[in-house]
Amino acid sequence: MLFKSIAIEWTGDRLKLLDQRKIPLEETWVECKDHFDVAKAIKDMIVRGAPAIGVSAAFGYVLGFLNALRFSKNELLDHMKKVRDILASSRPTAVNLFWALDRMEKKLNESLENKAEDAFKILESEALKIANEDLEMNKQIGRNGLSLFKNMDSVTLLTHCNAGALATSGYGTALGVIRALKESGKKVKVFVDETRPYLQGARLTAWELVKSSIESILICDNMAGWVMKQGWIDAVIVGADRIAANGDVANKIGTYSLAVLAKKHDIPFYVAAPYSTIDLSTCDGLKIPIEERNHEEVTHIMGIRIAPEKIKVYNPAFDVTDNNLITAIITERGVVTPPYSKKLKELFEG
Amino acid sequence: MLFKSIAIEWTGDRLKLLDQRKIPLEETWVECKDHFDVAKAIKDMIVRGAPAIGVSAAFGYVLGFLNALRFSKNELLDHMKKVRDILASSRPTAVNLFWALDRMEKKLNESLENKAEDAFKILESEALKIANEDLEMNKQIGRNGLSLFKNMDSVTLLTHCNAGALATSGYGTALGVIRALKESGKKVKVFVDETRPYLQGARLTAWELVKSSIESILICDNMAGWVMKQGWIDAVIVGADRIAANGDVANKIGTYSLAVLAKKHDIPFYVAAPYSTIDLSTCDGLKIPIEERNHEEVTHIMGIRIAPEKIKVYNPAFDVTDNNLITAIITERGVVTPPYSKKLKELFEG
Repeated sequence: MLFKSIAIEWTGDRLKLLDQRKIPLEETWVECKDHFDVAKAIKDMIVRGAPAIGVSAAFGYVLGFLNALRFSKNELLDHMKKVRDILASSRPTAVNLFWALDRMEKKLNESLENKAEDAFKILESEALKIANEDLEMNKQIGRNGLSLFKNMDSVTLLTHCNAGALATSGYGTALGVIRALKESGKKVKVFVDETRPYLQGARLTAWELVKSSIESILICDNMAGWVMKQGWIDAVIVGADRIAANGDVANKIGTYSLAVLAKKHDIPFYVAAPYSTIDLSTCDGLKIPIEERNHEEVTHIMGIRIAPEKIKVYNPAFDVTDNNLITAIITERGVVTPPYSKKLKELFEG
Repeated sequence: MLFKSIAIEWTGDRLKLLDQRKIPLEETWVECKDHFDVAKAIKDMIVRGAPAIGVSAAFGYVLGFLNALRFSKNELLDHMKKVRDILASSRPTAVNLFWALDRMEKKLNESLENKAEDAFKILESEALKIANEDLEMNKQIGRNGLSLFKNMDSVTLLTHCNAGALATSGYGTALGVIRALKESGKKVKVFVDETRPYLQGARLTAWELVKSSIESILICDNMAGWVMKQGWIDAVIVGADRIAANGDVANKIGTYSLAVLAKKHDIPFYVAAPYSTIDLSTCDGLKIPIEERNHEEVTHIMGIRIAPEKIKVYNPAFDVTDNNLITAIITERGVVTPPYSKKLKELFEG
């Protein structure tokens, strides 16, 4: 039983990860033989994106088990607790990481009476299930997104950051919709915001789209408004880090400005994200804490200083886009349009 | 007779220029002993900004004359024609460059009957006049801008690119208004857009403001909208490359997006520029050609590749901001408010 995406490969006894830190300059794969290697890969950001981290941790858990086949049951339980802890501490704020490890742990407990080799197969198949479920979910998001582009033979989109195959177990969310449009036979063109400060657009999205032979044009973030004004953009599509109960969306810094600019130019603004991103316990965007990241991300690029030493910096990682700027939210359960408070609740009830 | 600004120094027989390519990492001054050195400094972008280029060319003309004092009148005329050509070809699209050289040439023709030493003094004093007039004009723009911030004890501004002392013979236009606010005793804080792709904000404006002890905070361009949404910004202030007869403003790429965002947040949007930037022969912004610059500015930062090899790029140097997004245009002749078509014409007639 094997799995292979643009950035994650399970060979049966190894997890291979594309080193995303080196993209787009080099395509290097890192081979993980045990859970220590996987934890280090997550920590060092060789793999990034919440779903991709969850999938990697699940396979890391399988590798941890694989290296303990000869252990007694008690030794094994003790060992697997350590495996979990090591993987869990690799990126303590990643919710998908814990969710994946919980699923794996549950399967372990269910399979304790089996022979070790059989238990391994059960765990491996659970990890594969996590990977394939994520992949299928992204494809469903893509298919659902198609309904927003009916009767259009060619579509030009603008995207921000990387909500792509690199961040998931494949296909992507925002880029998944773009892939689905292309697969449906439409002519697709994508303007890619470089996405300062970490340049996920220039480094990852541009690489992923070129790799997938989707026509793409890189711009600096401050050019997006001007590009919209030229009438070149049919829709903006982005991912989401968290969606509040009222439809406010937290996503990579710059998303809010894009949404304001899209509104000004009467361009639809779409958010593509798995249903699990919707957090009904957060009533609105004001309740979403905005992480500030270190100043060197702004004052340095690729290790080179670009600003004077004494300058102060403001570097929020995310911003919140008001629900009234969002035309539709595309999930694997369907496309949600305003009023979001009502419709998102219905999505959960449905 | 001497002159010294943050980036230009005339010693009487040398022109010293701050090497702006090395700012903010190093403060290196380049010494020009003749017109060849000055032309090279302009060409190599050691000095940048239309007014600063004009002033440098004027002093380059003086240096060219200084090295020809022993020539006969005919030899001198022939030589000075070459001096002019060499300086004029250093940056063929810079209007201020030709304007300054025309002024110098006119003075040369007026002083041909004088002794060489006296003619030198006449030429030197004309170059100093060009420098000091520009400086005084910027200070007047600053003073005129104060009227827009009456009754405010503290002002937080957001600026883009570098419309500062570095680009002029000192003080600056947009940064000149900021300096005037500070000098008038107000508490001033400035958010500085880094201004991709060439990073004039991060490299030059941040350096200039830190150097002048004006509190400043560097942000990536895509953070400006979010910063406005926090309610932190009292006004946006930028420079201009060209102002059309109807008040449309061509300025560094990203200015248009900022103006849309300012409007959305009810934040005044000011343009500070010398009267000479207004071009009544250009009826509106649609008539202003937008230069596209080379793709490496976007795909590389400080010489390091940040995007995949095969990616396409769109890299407009400027954009045009519609007059209806501009609250006021601050010139040395006064502050102009809508309707611009009428008021800008009056400025010329007055």
